[in-house]
Amino acid sequence: MSRLDRSLISGLPPFEGLDAADLDAVLQSARSLRVEKDAAIFGQDGEAHSFFVLLDGKVRVVKSTVDGQQIIVRYIVPGELLGIAQALARSTYPASAIAVVDCVLLSWPGKLWSEFAAAFPTFGTTTYRTVGARLSDMQTQVMELATEQVERRVAHALLRLAHQSGRKTDKGILIDFPLSRQDIAEMTGTTLHTVSRLLTAWEEKGLVGSGRMQVCITDPHGLLLLADGRTGRA
Amino acid sequence: MSRLDRSLISGLPPFEGLDAADLDAVLQSARSLRVEKDAAIFGQDGEAHSFFVLLDGKVRVVKSTVDGQQIIVRYIVPGELLGIAQALARSTYPASAIAVVDCVLLSWPGKLWSEFAAAFPTFGTTTYRTVGARLSDMQTQVMELATEQVERRVAHALLRLAHQSGRKTDKGILIDFPLSRQDIAEMTGTTLHTVSRLLTAWEEKGLVGSGRMQVCITDPHGLLLLADGRTGRA
Repeated sequence: MSRLDRSLISGLPPFEGLDAADLDAVLQSARSLRVEKDAAIFGQDGEAHSFFVLLDGKVRVVKSTVDGQQIIVRYIVPGELLGIAQALARSTYPASAIAVVDCVLLSWPGKLWSEFAAAFPTFGTTTYRTVGARLSDMQTQVMELATEQVERRVAHALLRLAHQSGRKTDKGILIDFPLSRQDIAEMTGTTLHTVSRLLTAWEEKGLVGSGRMQVCITDPHGLLLLADGRTGRA
Repeated sequence: MSRLDRSLISGLPPFEGLDAADLDAVLQSARSLRVEKDAAIFGQDGEAHSFFVLLDGKVRVVKSTVDGQQIIVRYIVPGELLGIAQALARSTYPASAIAVVDCVLLSWPGKLWSEFAAAFPTFGTTTYRTVGARLSDMQTQVMELATEQVERRVAHALLRLAHQSGRKTDKGILIDFPLSRQDIAEMTGTTLHTVSRLLTAWEEKGLVGSGRMQVCITDPHGLLLLADGRTGRA
């Protein structure tokens, strides 16, 4: 039987303000799991048996079309909920969740979501806020796809990743997980070729540095000007 | 003092299964309002003071970029909730709601949302389902914008409107509210010029008929084949 310590979740937004007894009750029904890099945590259209909190690692949420194309919907960082189909009154997962690096998660049976939301107002509010933020992100993506040139979309996507998962280095803000050019293409509705062309042009301008599976924003202000359309095109 | 009859809401999904006393309690805190064609019900970034149920009419939800471009996020039909910022733990409306035709609505103070959700499980579940459906719609829009040619996106948008608000006529399925070519452009991330070019080509092929502010799908199966990419381009 697993013995999980309160400290695993006491600092996380969904469980903020819960006292020791509540935290123990929440943990008693939790299962901890480790998911290896590139493995699926859950699959699109699969039965939503569980919801999760990411404790460590990074998760990519991807959605596939019937004809096999794929987009990256978002990235999940530690402390965030995922798989909360119950908060959307869904019985299946709307997308797949893939471990970008080795991940540690806690999971709970899906049916406990409504119990937790009723018993712990913070938990309910946090899931509503999570859903609200994701809806807002999707609206932003729709806006960008509908109204922005591809160069600005790619710049916005990189800035968002830097904001979410950036680490300051002496070269600039490093996006702190493996990120391929194909990943960037699937986040921004464009092709690998276009992303490569843009990153090469931006490197020449000193805006970014990029290696295999790695992007560092060397001139965040310059990239922001470009994202907001306040400068000429590459 | 308004006197609202139970029959106004007893058949609507958010209030299904409520008994007469519950319906009366819900109506006691409701305000009924009429909003004229083209007027705003609420505005993007405005304080989310109320949530609403649309009783009659049609509402367009629009979002504007900082540089003044506009997209149509969705259309709301009678029986649907709108302005449920509380279910997203937001204090402002993420988009504007505009009456497409004269509308009748009921509104409630925003703070009642959590009371209703706690007291009436159906109400809570319906709002989660509404949010879930909207998140799913946004993901579909992102997928289409990211992966589909404009012709297929426009075809999908018209088929969705026909599904939501179509009326069978002897000429085909009429989209049953005023819909301009500019509206279609703002739903699909393209230009008025492109929409006009597509509709003209589709009329020649017998797929649609369109007048000013009106679209009728004369060959739904043909338009579906085109939307799914199973036919040549116009």
